[in-house]
Amino acid sequence: MHQVMIDTDILEANEQMADHNRGHFKEHGVYVVNLMSAPGAGKTSVLEQTINRIKDDYRLGVIEGDLMTTIDADRISALGVPSYQITTGTVCHLDAKMVHSALYSFKIDDLDLLFIENVGNLVCPAEFYLGEDLRVMVYSTVEGADKPKKYPMMFHESKAVLLNKIDLLPYSGVSLDELRRKVLEVSPETIIFPVSCRTGEGIDEWIAWLEWRIASA
Amino acid sequence: MHQVMIDTDILEANEQMADHNRGHFKEHGVYVVNLMSAPGAGKTSVLEQTINRIKDDYRLGVIEGDLMTTIDADRISALGVPSYQITTGTVCHLDAKMVHSALYSFKIDDLDLLFIENVGNLVCPAEFYLGEDLRVMVYSTVEGADKPKKYPMMFHESKAVLLNKIDLLPYSGVSLDELRRKVLEVSPETIIFPVSCRTGEGIDEWIAWLEWRIASA
Repeated sequence: MHQVMIDTDILEANEQMADHNRGHFKEHGVYVVNLMSAPGAGKTSVLEQTINRIKDDYRLGVIEGDLMTTIDADRISALGVPSYQITTGTVCHLDAKMVHSALYSFKIDDLDLLFIENVGNLVCPAEFYLGEDLRVMVYSTVEGADKPKKYPMMFHESKAVLLNKIDLLPYSGVSLDELRRKVLEVSPETIIFPVSCRTGEGIDEWIAWLEWRIASA
Repeated sequence: MHQVMIDTDILEANEQMADHNRGHFKEHGVYVVNLMSAPGAGKTSVLEQTINRIKDDYRLGVIEGDLMTTIDADRISALGVPSYQITTGTVCHLDAKMVHSALYSFKIDDLDLLFIENVGNLVCPAEFYLGEDLRVMVYSTVEGADKPKKYPMMFHESKAVLLNKIDLLPYSGVSLDELRRKVLEVSPETIIFPVSCRTGEGIDEWIAWLEWRIASA
């Protein structure tokens, strides 16, 4: 199919640019986390919770990806962390070139840890590497238990899944056990952190793991 | 940008195919609804609720779009309605060609009303016309109030927004008024139906409006 061939070319070019970014990050000692999810699963809330707990320990930066608006970058800036908003227009994911351009807005030597919040989408962000060290997914308990089977690449690609909004589990129609099982059926090695950005439950475990990953890099 | 130019070609070719589908639907007197949303907003639940109320009044068919699995088509078949699952592989939206191919699986003269449930994604489905008469979006109250501003095309393109999961409003951190206002700020002519597929609240109003649209076509 014509369309798929074009996609392959685009993906190859993207991977070259991602490698370029990766070299850049390594050279400057920056650890990079690509945060992905469906729209509204809570990526920015996870970032807020995370930043509030670790901002004295790491020099942080955040790149935000959205089709439009600077809503998310403004939320991050309000925490005193440098942030840059990429607006993709009609493009449903970030790519390595967009991230490369955004890097000129940071003093990269001033950063230890860079979060990239991708466009809310369970499909294409999984296909476009950005040069990150770690891919993490946020999966909301109210999205239903069928998402791992329906979007397996996103789950395969994520070293960790933050199972967010566990405070809504009593109203979600599914149990934590079922959600866990469905994730592991598709991606047995994924680490799952049940969290609630509203109550703060589980955030410390996620951060302890993240810090261990950074220290082991 | 190279990528955007390719997209334009693809979109033009898609629109020609969508027109072809549209002619086909008109000729056979089939009314077609394209249902779009983020992953997990409740499109299939809306279809189940809708089908159960109108299946004696219309001869129905459903095309389901997902990257993988036949979970949704199986849910629809269980209601005694003919359904066909398009699995898109890595493609994040349905296009007119996929729908055209799927039509060979139905006796189109046996249908009055065809629902097409798109891939869960707030971006690309809005760009790809399928030949439908009506585009309807499902927006879950727990996705946050910033989605209309972040994904304006999806809201512009939808004649109606089903604001689903209103039973979760007490836990969503936003009010119905705020969600309504945010939708109307971006798309002032969109009709909003607050519904809950769990309790059935609001579904009758949505169906009354849908029946009016079909009768006026």
